[in-house]
Amino acid sequence: MPNAQETTRILRRLLASGMHARAQRLLARMRPADRGPVLSGLTPPEIRTVIDLLFEQHRAASTLIELPPELLPQVFDALGDQRLADIFQRLELDDRVQLVDCLDPERRDDVVGLLPQSQREELIQIEAYPESSAGRVMITEFVALDVQMTAQAAIDRIRAEGIDSESILYLYVVDDKSRLEGVVPIRRLVAAAPDTRVEDLMIRDPVFVQADADQEEVAQMVGRYNLLAVPVVDEERRILGVITVDDVIEVINEEATEDMYLLAGLSEEDRVFSPAHHAIRKRLPWMLLNLGATFAAAGVVGLFERTLDEIVALAFFMPVVAGMGGNGGIQALTVITRAIALGEIEFSSGLRAVVKEVSVAIVIGAVTGLVSGMLAWLWQGNPVLGAVLFVTMMLTMAVAGILGAVVPLTLKALGQDPAVGSGVFVTTLTDIVGFAAFLGIGTLMLDRLV
Amino acid sequence: MPNAQETTRILRRLLASGMHARAQRLLARMRPADRGPVLSGLTPPEIRTVIDLLFEQHRAASTLIELPPELLPQVFDALGDQRLADIFQRLELDDRVQLVDCLDPERRDDVVGLLPQSQREELIQIEAYPESSAGRVMITEFVALDVQMTAQAAIDRIRAEGIDSESILYLYVVDDKSRLEGVVPIRRLVAAAPDTRVEDLMIRDPVFVQADADQEEVAQMVGRYNLLAVPVVDEERRILGVITVDDVIEVINEEATEDMYLLAGLSEEDRVFSPAHHAIRKRLPWMLLNLGATFAAAGVVGLFERTLDEIVALAFFMPVVAGMGGNGGIQALTVITRAIALGEIEFSSGLRAVVKEVSVAIVIGAVTGLVSGMLAWLWQGNPVLGAVLFVTMMLTMAVAGILGAVVPLTLKALGQDPAVGSGVFVTTLTDIVGFAAFLGIGTLMLDRLV
Repeated sequence: MPNAQETTRILRRLLASGMHARAQRLLARMRPADRGPVLSGLTPPEIRTVIDLLFEQHRAASTLIELPPELLPQVFDALGDQRLADIFQRLELDDRVQLVDCLDPERRDDVVGLLPQSQREELIQIEAYPESSAGRVMITEFVALDVQMTAQAAIDRIRAEGIDSESILYLYVVDDKSRLEGVVPIRRLVAAAPDTRVEDLMIRDPVFVQADADQEEVAQMVGRYNLLAVPVVDEERRILGVITVDDVIEVINEEATEDMYLLAGLSEEDRVFSPAHHAIRKRLPWMLLNLGATFAAAGVVGLFERTLDEIVALAFFMPVVAGMGGNGGIQALTVITRAIALGEIEFSSGLRAVVKEVSVAIVIGAVTGLVSGMLAWLWQGNPVLGAVLFVTMMLTMAVAGILGAVVPLTLKALGQDPAVGSGVFVTTLTDIVGFAAFLGIGTLMLDRLV
Repeated sequence: MPNAQETTRILRRLLASGMHARAQRLLARMRPADRGPVLSGLTPPEIRTVIDLLFEQHRAASTLIELPPELLPQVFDALGDQRLADIFQRLELDDRVQLVDCLDPERRDDVVGLLPQSQREELIQIEAYPESSAGRVMITEFVALDVQMTAQAAIDRIRAEGIDSESILYLYVVDDKSRLEGVVPIRRLVAAAPDTRVEDLMIRDPVFVQADADQEEVAQMVGRYNLLAVPVVDEERRILGVITVDDVIEVINEEATEDMYLLAGLSEEDRVFSPAHHAIRKRLPWMLLNLGATFAAAGVVGLFERTLDEIVALAFFMPVVAGMGGNGGIQALTVITRAIALGEIEFSSGLRAVVKEVSVAIVIGAVTGLVSGMLAWLWQGNPVLGAVLFVTMMLTMAVAGILGAVVPLTLKALGQDPAVGSGVFVTTLTDIVGFAAFLGIGTLMLDRLV
């Protein structure tokens, strides 16, 4: 297909000359996910027209859920409440929940009020689950079978219900109390002889999640066991809904973005094409916090004014101490945060991870400390200065390794996101320790440095 | 299930007292993915025994592919060539390729030599595809239908072939030259009336990838279009194989790890439980490079020895300039790198992204510059010092924004991984610009600072 900008240009021309039927044909030829980039180049009135055209073709709902989140406010603004409700109504539950969550709070109730009674009630139920929990991402459409059925009867049941939903990758076998007993992958059902009993096809002891489980946990489970969908159950193990792998992929991408963003002090909504004023509002508080942290480090340096006055060369090496310590800390932090995110680490094995990171940091601190000590000696012609830098680097790198490993594990143990603020915390503390050590030892050795 | 450490303990006791049948029952009750953590606690002879026990139950292959990569060398060492070949033989193609790639180069040929002729040839074919390409992750098992078939005939075909493979989520409709014409999701086949023609069920113009496409591109496509599998074709659009969503999830996790790791200067094999000496060997070259970069910054500071000698207070604010510039750069870098990874940015819209990042950086630079200028004035009682810091911050933040956005986009345009070395490059350059600006302007204003 031609690129998005080209398509946008053609579409605008068609709209401007009122050639709606041709615009519809152009839109129909595109995949829902490809319409997002095209829509992002249109003006609000054009967006309204396009959504109207798509709506006539029953394509508005599938387009809307594929739009990048930062585009939604603009699109919502272009549409009336009734039109939005009409579109939302045609969505699968998980998508409806997601879009309703993107509405302005003041508009939300108006739009939701226009939905059918049953959908309104469903929304209320879903919102009872904690944010980012399994209950929030599940769909409630699934096929339940009972143990005694044959493969053919199961196939007939699916045909009769005429479901062609993303949810029927697995069929769920339940007992007379709706409790989950087993799972039959649909491919296994198809491959089986028609008279095979569901009982003999099903995987017993299936993987499932509780409705209040965190979505990250669900994603880890799906990845680990190579599932296409995972059933969501209540405390009695009664099946409530299903989370499918396409939603899991979204969760995985979201969580990876979140981790990378948190390490850099970014907010999740701060995406590449969010408006600049939005990004500024989101980043400024963090940068002011960071400013406070750097001023704390500056204050520590300030304590050693006299020493610096005597040997100004010490100032040259401050970037070395800060740069190396910061990087060492971020390395440990990245390894540990990523291991937590992928579920590779339990808190019980946390100690092993800390010990490893610290040993690595000490060795690297010794080697780079030796090299920088030699370089400093060569440059300034003072072996004592080299020795001070060497000791400082060893110490700073060790502290960086400890902090980089301990901070995320501690946050995790406290039930917090391990990446929140870890970056600035680890680098600032490392800087402070590094400067204090370097200038402190320098002060002690002052006689031999001058 | 009880935790891994507990299970390891029980398993060791069973092995020590020769109760192999009970050990087998214990292992059989576990999911393949849960056996990895348990195996990691065993000694090499114990691992050999366990793999032998699993092999008897036809469970060794499924266990091996679920092991964390850092555990494989240890497990491979415990097993003979013949046993390994016997296990590899039972794997699906994509898994076989992956495990063979993990073998020591010297052992590789011996083990591959013991595989059946057809599998050896297949391996040679797969290795003709570039690393990390679609051809390397695909499996070659799939069901091809022709247009004229009915739904029932298609189901009968699947039953006759008795395939219960991860690959049959979609059936692929091909013309008489094996060229891909359409795709039928298996759930749609099941839900359809038995006499419906495949032609009327199939999705025309299906999504597909070329065998030499990068795996990251495949992952983006599967995520964007919510696919469960994507067909891999040659230049003539003849279907060669299929990539399934479980492998895509692995790719997504791998690529996210890679991006986070590259930003921190880590190598991908440097995982939480890789041995310390391994991590040291991987990190040391990067840290030495980083050391060189920090010494370059130190050299820049050294150029201003006289200025610092006159006004030592300038040294206090170096951590502020470096810390803020570095963080601003990393923020821009993270937003852009992530957008590239998720396929949200094409190079054509790169300019827009750069303009936005720079505007954001300038505003944040102005605000934080103002605050730091005031703080510096208050602290040191010198308004000129405050002004110097303000101008420096504006400039440094702007440069950080430009570099953070331009560096990854340029690397991407050059066909490189956008994250490679970006982190150290951006922060070092920002440091150097920041120090040079701060101390340079300070030198110019020297008369009014003293």
